[in-house]
Formats: sequence, structure tokens, C-alpha cells
Amino acid sequence: MKIIVTVTPKKNVLDPQGAAVQHALESQDFPGLKAVHVGKIIELEIDEQGGAGWEERIDRICRDLLSNPVIEDYRWEKAS
Amino acid sequence: MKIIVTVTPKKNVLDPQGAAVQHALESQDFPGLKAVHVGKIIELEIDEQGGAGWEERIDRICRDLLSNPVIEDYRWEKAS
Repeated sequence: MKIIVTVTPKKNVLDPQGAAVQHALESQDFPGLKAVHVGKIIELEIDEQGGAGWEERIDRICRDLLSNPVIEDYRWEKAS
Repeated sequence: MKIIVTVTPKKNVLDPQGAAVQHALESQDFPGLKAVHVGKIIELEIDEQGGAGWEERIDRICRDLLSNPVIEDYRWEKAS
């Protein structure tokens, strides 16, 4: 199965990448832009037989390894 | 409205970030991992009144600015 983890900067944290993209889009005459946030997406392909507790395990790696909970939010979903 | 653009490396392109995450997860004893891909996600908040042709405009900025079509695929969806 495929797990899609999305990690985005928290709303009140400075997001220089988002600011840079917003600035670039504005300079390209892209109208009506209010905000841009840039995050990352991690696709994990894992065996169907994840075994007991695989959801807790994914939560743990999201928290400990794939995101920095101080400045980032994460969410994950099962894609297929 | 919110537009979510997802940019991922093409399947046959070397993905060193994905390989690094896969290696880290394996060293953390995460079982059954087959592949990891790391991409980026760009959330654009734009005015409801995008005007005529806003979909073509978003396609254009995805292609020209937010992704490198030689090595990356992109997709976008309207979130709300």
C-alpha cells in the first residue's frame, strides 16, 4: 500500500520558501494571490502486511523522523 | 480558494532525498518498506474571482515555475 505523508510549516512560522514563490508569482503577473505555503510530501510504499500497530508506527516516524513538530505540521493518509 | 500543487520526481529519475529517507527508516527498523519518494507541495491561496482562464494560468505556472518538467511530474487540485 501507499502512504502519503504531507509536512507543512505551521501557520505562524516564517516560510521563506513560500514567500519566495509568492514573490516570483507576483512578478510573473499572477493576480489575486493571497498566500503561498511550501511543504514536502513523502510517499512510502510498504508491504500490505504491515503487521499489528502499523498505524502507530507511521505516526511515530512522522513525528520523530519526517517532520519537526516544533515548526511543522504533518498529516498522513493511505492512498491505495 | 486553495490550490494544492504536488511536484514529485519522475519514476526513473534518481531521488537522493527519497533514498536517504528510505535508508533512515530502514535503520530505525521500519519493516516492509519497498520505496520512498520525496516531493514538494505548494499551497496557493487565491481570490475566488480568478477571472477567465485561471486554470490555464495555474497549469502554466506549474510547468514554468513550480516544477522542472524534465525530471519532475506535477499535478494540482482545488482544495476548497
